[in-house]
Amino acid sequence: MSGCALALVRRTRRTSRASLLLQCRRLAAGGRTSDDLLDLCRGRGFLLGEEMSPASVLGGRHSLGPLGAQMKRNLVKEWWDAMLLHQEQVLPIDSLCHLPGASNSSPRPPLKTLPQWHLDRLQNQGPTQEELETMATLRQDLLYGALYCYPSCLELLNRKLPFGIAEVGRCFQPITGEENPDTCRVSERTAASLVWFSSAKTCAQWRDFWLRQRLLWWRKFAQVPSRFSSGDHQDEEGRKLTIIQYDFPWGKEPIERLGSMDDSALTQMHHVPAAPLHGRDGRKSVLPHVVWVSSEVERGLLAYLSDSLQVTENTAPRGKEQRRAVLKIHPSLAPIKVAVDMGKGPAVDLRLVCQGLCSELQGRGISIWPGYLETLQTPMEQLFTRYDEMGVLFTALVSDVTLQSGLLHLRSRDTTIRETMHISKLSAFLMQHLTAAAKL
Amino acid sequence: MSGCALALVRRTRRTSRASLLLQCRRLAAGGRTSDDLLDLCRGRGFLLGEEMSPASVLGGRHSLGPLGAQMKRNLVKEWWDAMLLHQEQVLPIDSLCHLPGASNSSPRPPLKTLPQWHLDRLQNQGPTQEELETMATLRQDLLYGALYCYPSCLELLNRKLPFGIAEVGRCFQPITGEENPDTCRVSERTAASLVWFSSAKTCAQWRDFWLRQRLLWWRKFAQVPSRFSSGDHQDEEGRKLTIIQYDFPWGKEPIERLGSMDDSALTQMHHVPAAPLHGRDGRKSVLPHVVWVSSEVERGLLAYLSDSLQVTENTAPRGKEQRRAVLKIHPSLAPIKVAVDMGKGPAVDLRLVCQGLCSELQGRGISIWPGYLETLQTPMEQLFTRYDEMGVLFTALVSDVTLQSGLLHLRSRDTTIRETMHISKLSAFLMQHLTAAAKL
Repeated sequence: MSGCALALVRRTRRTSRASLLLQCRRLAAGGRTSDDLLDLCRGRGFLLGEEMSPASVLGGRHSLGPLGAQMKRNLVKEWWDAMLLHQEQVLPIDSLCHLPGASNSSPRPPLKTLPQWHLDRLQNQGPTQEELETMATLRQDLLYGALYCYPSCLELLNRKLPFGIAEVGRCFQPITGEENPDTCRVSERTAASLVWFSSAKTCAQWRDFWLRQRLLWWRKFAQVPSRFSSGDHQDEEGRKLTIIQYDFPWGKEPIERLGSMDDSALTQMHHVPAAPLHGRDGRKSVLPHVVWVSSEVERGLLAYLSDSLQVTENTAPRGKEQRRAVLKIHPSLAPIKVAVDMGKGPAVDLRLVCQGLCSELQGRGISIWPGYLETLQTPMEQLFTRYDEMGVLFTALVSDVTLQSGLLHLRSRDTTIRETMHISKLSAFLMQHLTAAAKL
Repeated sequence: MSGCALALVRRTRRTSRASLLLQCRRLAAGGRTSDDLLDLCRGRGFLLGEEMSPASVLGGRHSLGPLGAQMKRNLVKEWWDAMLLHQEQVLPIDSLCHLPGASNSSPRPPLKTLPQWHLDRLQNQGPTQEELETMATLRQDLLYGALYCYPSCLELLNRKLPFGIAEVGRCFQPITGEENPDTCRVSERTAASLVWFSSAKTCAQWRDFWLRQRLLWWRKFAQVPSRFSSGDHQDEEGRKLTIIQYDFPWGKEPIERLGSMDDSALTQMHHVPAAPLHGRDGRKSVLPHVVWVSSEVERGLLAYLSDSLQVTENTAPRGKEQRRAVLKIHPSLAPIKVAVDMGKGPAVDLRLVCQGLCSELQGRGISIWPGYLETLQTPMEQLFTRYDEMGVLFTALVSDVTLQSGLLHLRSRDTTIRETMHISKLSAFLMQHLTAAAKL
């Protein structure tokens, strides 16, 4: 088995060279560079768009392609699971991006939105004060929405503290052009935010609790957990902030912020007497303090892509440089778990087998890549290179042997070993593998 | 068993009266009115905000509360499952809300976004032409993003047609005030969009296919499937559109639009020679036509809430009017599957049992409502009324009997019958119930 696998690896390396040379221009000592990462992300459709740079990616100026979008969905699902499956109460909400009046309470300057016909008029005359006031504002974070929804959530829980309000949603920020400070673009990001309400007395404990939880969560899916770290900072207004950061090839960047606020957060927002905002903490009635944890989903996604990228270089026979790039994405986050491809044999029959296999796997919630639909023949080694760069966990290879004996080849991304397995055992094997990886 | 259940129903009806009278002001012949629906949605935290009316709800001017947000997550999950688990290739993407240059290709006038400091300056002087051009535009639908991502997706699939690009995301539209046409608000909605690329020859067939699929999908989760219907319309520019609509208490409203476009959709968008946009259809190289299916998620949510609301009225003994409202939400969509509550018995021990039960259920992905955390005693009947109005499928009642024999009471929302079940069998029973309902 291992001899065959080794031969395969060697072959894979040889043929993957051309595509890799295109995609990986420079090689760092550590095996991952910014160029490696961004080229792979663009080449395999994790990120879309031209002129990709660390700044443009972190600035939220790129759409996510198919693999990036699917991986983001997995990441957001894991975030929700970690939030909602917690023992204490966490309630999901879905607030509006435009909150009228948000400008008064939001700590940062709001973005204003105008319809086209307003703008046309603006070209001739400036907006009136009244117009500016009625215009809606685009949110820059999810804090406002959670504070706004607090009274309804409190009521739903019979006023019992502590509890949290969770939301995942798009947020907007202005970015001023570097060359020309007069041009202005809008940067977008998906925030995943938990706003936690508890009594003043327990607030500091909860802050520590959530910081620990969140750091553990980020590290859970990492190849090199130590690249996720936390540190204390101060925001523009001098408040203490804890930041979880990731060590990208170009340096450390924040991916999550954690801060706390006193009871003024709620009273400033709701211009009502404090009593309706009071919750029950045991037998006491208290106005809660707030712990706020906010992650940046796309940055987290990029952190995991950077974390999982492994580039290895070998001097192959005939002295040629051989490079192999693999995205060893955590099984829970990998956008595609298994690719189903056809080997040699009668195409019509094999296609039917592949179709049945795909239906079975999809029925169990395993995301597949239907490589068998492809009508252009691709050499096996090129396929494996492509799938490694896509982070596909396994490749199932159906061939004429499968028709005779039911056996197929299953090739693993992480070991590059090809195993033989009966087709009826595949879905159970994959489920077991995924469940085990999720629990680690 | 049925005698006991009947007695329970009667008691439930009696005590639930007070809360129901508050929530249901009017009663229609059909058992559901706009007021019934909106009052229940607000009262139970499906929708948040003041001054709720059919217009404001359909106009996307309300945030979703905890139950609404969770139900929307379930609905979106079902949508993705229906899209991605399909035999043919559907690729997910995640595009930006602000697309520079979108104004040229989008059929509707774009919204423009400005940061605060720009607006401050605008008050003194109008924007320059240059400024207007560099400003980003807020998307009104997801078509542009899919057309923009088409070349990358085509490449990922080795140029093989047909395929689809799917996305769920927030979209924005201006709404002009009814009383004062000069004031302008922004309406938000979540669109779930599939853009399907196929050869000209098969485009009409695919259009029919997707219409059938989508209508079946909407009806799958409905109590009264016939309230979902389709009809042909013409848009502002005279193009044929098929609309899937739902029969709300206030009339039919569109919840999904389906249209097709010829190859100019792609060529107008990408200002490149047509060749790089060509895909392979069998052995031919063709420029694909487009079928576009776009659902409005929040309207769909409201449609299912309206569909599932059942208000019954009975003349009880002593001639008092008795009303009972139940949200018979489809098991796959119900935001909470099971509420875990404590009956009589030693609180500390029972709480431990409930905690263990909740962990087990959550571990299997069943969303729970931890009613046992509540420290204020609520009569059982009031609890059932509340859970019925929240659409909770089952209520599990742990009591001192459970400590002795392991048996708990399980009360069903739909039948109002209370069964006795061993605690070890609950999670398997619920999984079976949910799986069976999803397959129907």
